[in-house]
Amino acid sequence: MKMLHFDKSNQCVFYLIMTLQEIKDYLYNVVQPIELVGNPQTAIQGISEIETAQQGELAFVANSKYERFLESTNASAVIVSNKIDKAKLPGSKAYLLAGDPYIAFVFILEKLSPMRKFIQEGISESAFIDPTAEVDQDVSIGAGAYIGQNCQVKRGAKIGPNVSLLDGVVVGEDSMIYPNVTVYDECRIGNRVIVHAGATIGADGFGFAPQPDGSYHKIPQVGIVVLEDDVELGANLCIDRATIGETRVKRGTKIDNLVQVGHNCSIGSNTVIASQVGVSGSVTIGNQCMVGGQAGFVGHIEMADKMVIGAQAGITKSFNQEGLVIRGAPAQPIRDQMKQEVMLRKLGDMMERIKQLELQLQQMNDQKLTK
Amino acid sequence: MKMLHFDKSNQCVFYLIMTLQEIKDYLYNVVQPIELVGNPQTAIQGISEIETAQQGELAFVANSKYERFLESTNASAVIVSNKIDKAKLPGSKAYLLAGDPYIAFVFILEKLSPMRKFIQEGISESAFIDPTAEVDQDVSIGAGAYIGQNCQVKRGAKIGPNVSLLDGVVVGEDSMIYPNVTVYDECRIGNRVIVHAGATIGADGFGFAPQPDGSYHKIPQVGIVVLEDDVELGANLCIDRATIGETRVKRGTKIDNLVQVGHNCSIGSNTVIASQVGVSGSVTIGNQCMVGGQAGFVGHIEMADKMVIGAQAGITKSFNQEGLVIRGAPAQPIRDQMKQEVMLRKLGDMMERIKQLELQLQQMNDQKLTK
Amino acid sequence: MKMLHFDKSNQCVFYLIMTLQEIKDYLYNVVQPIELVGNPQTAIQGISEIETAQQGELAFVANSKYERFLESTNASAVIVSNKIDKAKLPGSKAYLLAGDPYIAFVFILEKLSPMRKFIQEGISESAFIDPTAEVDQDVSIGAGAYIGQNCQVKRGAKIGPNVSLLDGVVVGEDSMIYPNVTVYDECRIGNRVIVHAGATIGADGFGFAPQPDGSYHKIPQVGIVVLEDDVELGANLCIDRATIGETRVKRGTKIDNLVQVGHNCSIGSNTVIASQVGVSGSVTIGNQCMVGGQAGFVGHIEMADKMVIGAQAGITKSFNQEGLVIRGAPAQPIRDQMKQEVMLRKLGDMMERIKQLELQLQQMNDQKLTK
Repeated sequence: MKMLHFDKSNQCVFYLIMTLQEIKDYLYNVVQPIELVGNPQTAIQGISEIETAQQGELAFVANSKYERFLESTNASAVIVSNKIDKAKLPGSKAYLLAGDPYIAFVFILEKLSPMRKFIQEGISESAFIDPTAEVDQDVSIGAGAYIGQNCQVKRGAKIGPNVSLLDGVVVGEDSMIYPNVTVYDECRIGNRVIVHAGATIGADGFGFAPQPDGSYHKIPQVGIVVLEDDVELGANLCIDRATIGETRVKRGTKIDNLVQVGHNCSIGSNTVIASQVGVSGSVTIGNQCMVGGQAGFVGHIEMADKMVIGAQAGITKSFNQEGLVIRGAPAQPIRDQMKQEVMLRKLGDMMERIKQLELQLQQMNDQKLTK
Repeated sequence: MKMLHFDKSNQCVFYLIMTLQEIKDYLYNVVQPIELVGNPQTAIQGISEIETAQQGELAFVANSKYERFLESTNASAVIVSNKIDKAKLPGSKAYLLAGDPYIAFVFILEKLSPMRKFIQEGISESAFIDPTAEVDQDVSIGAGAYIGQNCQVKRGAKIGPNVSLLDGVVVGEDSMIYPNVTVYDECRIGNRVIVHAGATIGADGFGFAPQPDGSYHKIPQVGIVVLEDDVELGANLCIDRATIGETRVKRGTKIDNLVQVGHNCSIGSNTVIASQVGVSGSVTIGNQCMVGGQAGFVGHIEMADKMVIGAQAGITKSFNQEGLVIRGAPAQPIRDQMKQEVMLRKLGDMMERIKQLELQLQQMNDQKLTK
Repeated sequence: MKMLHFDKSNQCVFYLIMTLQEIKDYLYNVVQPIELVGNPQTAIQGISEIETAQQGELAFVANSKYERFLESTNASAVIVSNKIDKAKLPGSKAYLLAGDPYIAFVFILEKLSPMRKFIQEGISESAFIDPTAEVDQDVSIGAGAYIGQNCQVKRGAKIGPNVSLLDGVVVGEDSMIYPNVTVYDECRIGNRVIVHAGATIGADGFGFAPQPDGSYHKIPQVGIVVLEDDVELGANLCIDRATIGETRVKRGTKIDNLVQVGHNCSIGSNTVIASQVGVSGSVTIGNQCMVGGQAGFVGHIEMADKMVIGAQAGITKSFNQEGLVIRGAPAQPIRDQMKQEVMLRKLGDMMERIKQLELQLQQMNDQKLTK
């Protein structure tokens, strides 16, 4: 009934045969409202983007700027917003009208795409598993993986090829550790956690005590990293272990590729951190925050819950107001920051007005002298 | 005739014996004009930087600020610009005068340095290759590499130690995948592509649908990454797979270390992206663009061909003018941005002039009162 | 006498039994002054953070803002500053008064925490070691590690699982290379160097010669990377090899995670570089400098010794004044940069004063007309 397939133009599509009515019935159970316009028997054998969709495929328009493709697309059916003017819909196709076309699309995509089976089932003969490690049933471990002393790998976990788990690491149930990840000793990974390839969890915090001769003395980093359930961590990111105690990422939080989280940080629950953000040591970020890409935090500060932090922001102090939106460097509440931006754009105007004032005053003075 | 050698001071140099005349003859075939001044029989046994060159070595001066070393260098010959005043050249040495000394140097370097043989030829016994994978002749695969189901590795490709290719990956002819790289399932790598160590190609795009309870629902990422021919990708960078469809890097493009390219991006042909740049999802960058280090792009925007984007720029909207130079955050055409920078430097002056104006007005008012 | 232990709340603590007097005596030998207030027989069985410390544990207060926890903490003893008002110390506990409480804490931590034994001793059977490589006694090499032709691994070095050392790499005595690190051919690592997981040392510099047809010609990168003794490098960072010659990191320098150091750079001795900094090619940074996170350097510039460079700074030119503090983008001496920041905050005020001036002039002109 369904099959992942790459066609000759390298487009990745799903081939299946479902009628639009069947798709509508499925969606009706998970997202409402949903309405079908056109032939319910339209055969759908794949999903694609509207610009590149072929006959027999279902596309979607989540953003009104893509409505211009409704006429030209080869898709046999399109998911559109139920706020669209039905009179505008080209009659040659069928439509699903949804309150949120993107969410409807996500649910179809999810129905059609099974969890990625990224490694073969079972334990590879070329994995190294220390005899003292506890590996539950239904665990998959890829070729070249290294499982150190006293590690625990729980039921359903998948450990990719060439992953290295140092001594005492715990990986919870159904978690997925992609290839070439390193987890340092004693770190704890919860259930249903996803760690993408190349990530480093639990490396030493960056702590050195300056010595009188100008050299640095390494401060032992004896804490750990704790990743709570349902966390997802991006490729090639780094989360440092605590100096003492723990660095913690709380339940449901998602962190993108190449992010740095320093020692002893606490990242709240259901927070989203975009790529290349840098979080210095001992920073606390609240729950349900959103942090834009490349933002940077100085150490030892706290962010309230539900804050929104702009891309490339430089956060230099604590903010304790829930839901506050900040941006800029140094970061400030968005209202202040936008005022400053407006002022910056008026600099030329200000200079011109100063010149005019000087000229007028000069003229007035000249007139007085003339009198 | 030539030999890679490290001398006692750890300087990496090439030892060979060629006369300057032989070198000139070689260069004459690839870069012109080229002129020899001094003894054509000068024996050259290595290449080095002008500051550290020893007797018997050939150095180069591509930038006039290094001309000050012409007197003091121990090099036996130096490649210099043909625009130099010949009267200034110290008579103790020989010279090659070239239109572009750096390009001349590059060609000599290339003639002397064979393509790096980064792994032993053949297929390591400790590599894991799934029986369903197709591996062409003349392929080298290093120890600990993992080649998943239905992968294709084409003629002449080199797969380094501890590389992980998940199921269905295609690696084109003569491509080089350095150690510890991960390529996720179904991604396609063209011919003569170089992927440096630790890179992650095809990890999931950062897509999550917010739920009413504040948690996030993972959006399946079922697209792929396509790297066209002659692409070179830096160490530890990340190129995410598309949600649906593909993330594509076009022919001849070079991307530096630690760059992030989000899901569904399209990076044009012969474009150069410097280190630590962040490209959010669904961004289109044109052909022959140059992007400076640490620049960041918000999602869903388009850049025209041949644009030049400054280091640390924050690009918040589309630009459609071919060849436009932008910089700053938010990024703007360089002329506007430079005006703003000039204004910023004049802020103190503006403030002073405002004070003067206030003072003058005060005096005028005082005079009126006095009258 | 001591034992690394995780209690039920996942707090990482050290369990040992020492009296406070014993701890004071130990500290007296390494940091002075040190004074004991309270019961010298207080039994200490662990170290913890003051907020979470339990009875029987020793905590510390290095920052006066944590003094508020002195009353509520359950710690049996606390290390505090000897500048504290002794009358304020709650009588229920014992105290160590130190000139620098944090350093005192670091020394206790260090006494209690042995060097991490991150892999089993000896050479794993599943490591690949080329027959031409020289491996000294007392070396540990983890499972899946790859040691190429003519590599040298010196006495006491530890090479983690899945590390890849390409041909000719030298690793000095007692150095630690964590898992999934790649070191390219011919690079040289000194003694007591630590390279954290996922780092890439010696990948090709980003050098391409533009061709008339818009494509790029790869410039051979035949230099190396040299890491001097006592260097520590963070996880997932990249240090590129030189085009010719070498990229060098000098003795005692510490570089944090995800930093990029380009080809032909020279990083001075005992310099500290925070996470995500980007250093373009051919940059020289002096000795004993401190570079804040996410700062970026353009190519071919030089920094003096003992400079302090702010986080997110954009350094666009050389600075030759020892000890100079710079920040901002473009970076400038901190005094100038702070002046500009003050001015930026006064923009609204300036605009208001311009409006007032215009109004006053208008009124004066109106009055003249009236007269």
